[in-house]
Amino acid sequence: MTPTVVVTLRCTDQRGIVKTVADTVFEVHGNIVDSAQFWDRPSDSFSLRMEIQVDEGSIATLESSLIANLAEFSPNISVRPIARLRRALILATTADHCLRELLYLAQAGELSADIAGIVSNHGVLQPIAEQFDVPFFHVPVAPNSKPLAEARLDEIVTETDADFLVLARYMQVLSDEFCARHPGRIINIHHSFLPGFKGAKPYHQAYDRGVKLIGATAHYVTADLDEGPIIEQDVVRVGHHHSADQLVSIGRDVERRVLARAVRLHAEDRVFPNGMRTVVFDS
Amino acid sequence: MTPTVVVTLRCTDQRGIVKTVADTVFEVHGNIVDSAQFWDRPSDSFSLRMEIQVDEGSIATLESSLIANLAEFSPNISVRPIARLRRALILATTADHCLRELLYLAQAGELSADIAGIVSNHGVLQPIAEQFDVPFFHVPVAPNSKPLAEARLDEIVTETDADFLVLARYMQVLSDEFCARHPGRIINIHHSFLPGFKGAKPYHQAYDRGVKLIGATAHYVTADLDEGPIIEQDVVRVGHHHSADQLVSIGRDVERRVLARAVRLHAEDRVFPNGMRTVVFDS
Amino acid sequence: MTPTVVVTLRCTDQRGIVKTVADTVFEVHGNIVDSAQFWDRPSDSFSLRMEIQVDEGSIATLESSLIANLAEFSPNISVRPIARLRRALILATTADHCLRELLYLAQAGELSADIAGIVSNHGVLQPIAEQFDVPFFHVPVAPNSKPLAEARLDEIVTETDADFLVLARYMQVLSDEFCARHPGRIINIHHSFLPGFKGAKPYHQAYDRGVKLIGATAHYVTADLDEGPIIEQDVVRVGHHHSADQLVSIGRDVERRVLARAVRLHAEDRVFPNGMRTVVFDS
Amino acid sequence: MTPTVVVTLRCTDQRGIVKTVADTVFEVHGNIVDSAQFWDRPSDSFSLRMEIQVDEGSIATLESSLIANLAEFSPNISVRPIARLRRALILATTADHCLRELLYLAQAGELSADIAGIVSNHGVLQPIAEQFDVPFFHVPVAPNSKPLAEARLDEIVTETDADFLVLARYMQVLSDEFCARHPGRIINIHHSFLPGFKGAKPYHQAYDRGVKLIGATAHYVTADLDEGPIIEQDVVRVGHHHSADQLVSIGRDVERRVLARAVRLHAEDRVFPNGMRTVVFDS
Repeated sequence: MTPTVVVTLRCTDQRGIVKTVADTVFEVHGNIVDSAQFWDRPSDSFSLRMEIQVDEGSIATLESSLIANLAEFSPNISVRPIARLRRALILATTADHCLRELLYLAQAGELSADIAGIVSNHGVLQPIAEQFDVPFFHVPVAPNSKPLAEARLDEIVTETDADFLVLARYMQVLSDEFCARHPGRIINIHHSFLPGFKGAKPYHQAYDRGVKLIGATAHYVTADLDEGPIIEQDVVRVGHHHSADQLVSIGRDVERRVLARAVRLHAEDRVFPNGMRTVVFDS
Repeated sequence: MTPTVVVTLRCTDQRGIVKTVADTVFEVHGNIVDSAQFWDRPSDSFSLRMEIQVDEGSIATLESSLIANLAEFSPNISVRPIARLRRALILATTADHCLRELLYLAQAGELSADIAGIVSNHGVLQPIAEQFDVPFFHVPVAPNSKPLAEARLDEIVTETDADFLVLARYMQVLSDEFCARHPGRIINIHHSFLPGFKGAKPYHQAYDRGVKLIGATAHYVTADLDEGPIIEQDVVRVGHHHSADQLVSIGRDVERRVLARAVRLHAEDRVFPNGMRTVVFDS
Repeated sequence: MTPTVVVTLRCTDQRGIVKTVADTVFEVHGNIVDSAQFWDRPSDSFSLRMEIQVDEGSIATLESSLIANLAEFSPNISVRPIARLRRALILATTADHCLRELLYLAQAGELSADIAGIVSNHGVLQPIAEQFDVPFFHVPVAPNSKPLAEARLDEIVTETDADFLVLARYMQVLSDEFCARHPGRIINIHHSFLPGFKGAKPYHQAYDRGVKLIGATAHYVTADLDEGPIIEQDVVRVGHHHSADQLVSIGRDVERRVLARAVRLHAEDRVFPNGMRTVVFDS
Repeated sequence: MTPTVVVTLRCTDQRGIVKTVADTVFEVHGNIVDSAQFWDRPSDSFSLRMEIQVDEGSIATLESSLIANLAEFSPNISVRPIARLRRALILATTADHCLRELLYLAQAGELSADIAGIVSNHGVLQPIAEQFDVPFFHVPVAPNSKPLAEARLDEIVTETDADFLVLARYMQVLSDEFCARHPGRIINIHHSFLPGFKGAKPYHQAYDRGVKLIGATAHYVTADLDEGPIIEQDVVRVGHHHSADQLVSIGRDVERRVLARAVRLHAEDRVFPNGMRTVVFDS
């Protein structure tokens, strides 16, 4: 069967980009089977995602030709055979609901990602890693050891050949330096519907405020910003009869679903950070 | 056909309330056809809503007996034949999307409320009032005339026999005194999903922040609070391809649906303010 | 400001289509500002929708060049300046909830369509037409007069310059001949979530079955088929406490929202019928 | 801490039931902390669910007094300390998505049920049972061995002290006799939004029909009926770009969520079968 490759491209909008891509695909006898593009007028940036069927032997040519032919547009280009799954390194602390969801979906073949490993600053999640036969890395973080811990994290990223990091209720703040070393490659789940309740215990704040919906937000982590570009959000209806503790439980359910969806979208190269916003070509 | 009455009751929780209500309904040969109750533990307050079938001639007895038998619990009690619709006075400025929704639903018999009249500080909505054959009151508000305008509002409430007020994108801030005179009887639609973007142009703020959901919140207006107890909220999924102006348009659609639902819930005596929270017995 | 045109194209999938379109847009100095395409593998059909900014004076050239350059692909092509709204002729009987929704949205500028007129086999909706200042055509249908009535309908389509027809709870069955004369141009709202309850009183059937969700389906009307290609569907959560009559009322609310969304999608050239399926490029 | 008990009651509607219950709770110095009731007019049946705080030592008295005092109404009464979780026996074949969801939620304390064991007619799920430390029973079913297999099932129900059975994609049809022996105690997940596509491969049928929403239905299994009373349903939005296989994958996601919700509602004594309908007192 002819393989499918995912091509993504990001650049300033200019006339002729799509034409050049189409020409190039034509040259290598490829066939565009899915295509989504978006011109963001305020930022004048252009995002393109294509799925292209092309002979195994022509994939390298497709990539080099795209780079050569599009050089004048100075784009970011990525070419990935769809069968080569992106690899996620999961960071967690002690809560396991998001972690389990990701492990389950990866095992079921519904995450579009491989789990490269699990990192935790505690040891309690190790049995789950063993249950799912995934490498576990215990990286403690003490008040003064953050630089060391992050250096170890960088090593693990390399060792496990991870493409991106997922903070699955990881209760440590990453340094700006670490974030800057992995731009657009760290996904976090925020236990609130942003913009929402800031600070600790957002579900208890939500309870006190008497909200009728609670939600969660998956976003990229960036160095300079409290909360980076949003990838996915969702909410669930709640009522007066839910206690603050029940909101926490309902919140866990939303969190794991929202994070899993964001990870899948990212792993399928469907998310394009664009300043504080993202372009998401939903499947 | 035996009429149905809606009984609502609000008091501090004490043993024996439900028993006393059940005894009283039994005495007047009434039949409880729907019942919802809620004990809010943090505030120790008890809310009860019942629909009771009782002979026309026994409605007055039911009310007086409930008041007498429950006196020791010091409750707020309301007894209303379901056929006597609550009357809404709508306040608007120039935007007509919420107003039209309410007029349409009332005319279609799906709002559970009668429209007592429309008040606006502008004249542009008068033709709509005429279209729907509803009294229109032009009450201009100048920088120094707010007390006069609010005095006129109070008169209109009396003249039109209105039970509650609906701020359907009414762009005037009501004074604390006015709000205090109508506690739990003023419903506002907030063009954001609270807690959300504060200040002007929330949809443009939402656009800049790249949110994936936008929403609206219907709440009671209270004197002391920026944003009173929430009655109803909802959200709609949006994406990168929506411009800020499209978010405004989508927002209008959510606003009118959320406000209409809140008005119906209130008109059916299903909403019990409870501090900053509300108990809502959904239908 | 440079005008935007909507280009749609439908043909059997062949290599080179996108390239040819991109070349053509490039020739007339146009700029692709939005693009969506879909190759349906089972039917091997290709659908493309583009929004292109192009000088007023080049629109005609764009159209003729697309037709000439793409001739080998035998496509269906449509080129429409976005500012020239498609015109909807609404057919109704006596129920007014869908009709009012469409009139309201069109008036508010949120339907992306102009209302060309209202046709009814009864006279009761005439005052609404007058309220909204839209031409009203009373076309009675007696058992033997259907051919005459449909001939009159065809005349009205021509007179009002309507692009498509909307059956807004129109309780007459259109003949196969009439449907065949207006392929992909008649939209119906089905008061059920298809595949669902067939026959009369679907909400009462839904009640008897105890379903927890009820819905509505907007679809194209086709000559040979009971139920043509689906454009849009939605559902609402219901419960044991809703009577069959309440389901009817809730159903009306879903119906009008689903129909309005389908009309807007169609009017924006976002819907491509594809056998029993549709390709819908959501906004 | 004072324990909470869940009381449920089902009978023909008669005047005085609520009063009698309230009197009885009062006698044992209990406190009603949550109450939901419903009179189904078409069937004239009455359902009541209460959560009552009562001293440990008075639970038995509460139960015996309710039975004695309500005898004239011939109700079905259940009294269960909330801390004594209902026990679910899960039946599966080879698909594991629903099974894993239930195991995960039970382990996380969010299912309100204990997993008594897993039964399968295949052996492939045994490792999952071991992962989660739950008893596994391999009960093969051959064309002629169904009576034997069902006899073994009955034994397992007894051995594991199971309160109810969950068919988590169990691909065997249970006999009418077996179903009749466990009325209102077998929950199935139907891989379609009922009423929907009958027969094999519903998602492929859904694909062919071009539906825009797919869903799943959790229902009780009954002897005489193809599809018993519905407990819970949900849908997910899909589009033209989803292949039939993708619908299957999306469907699995809905199935597991809908089944898990139904199991939790049942385990919390919130579901009252009522002919073909159910009364569900949502939390």
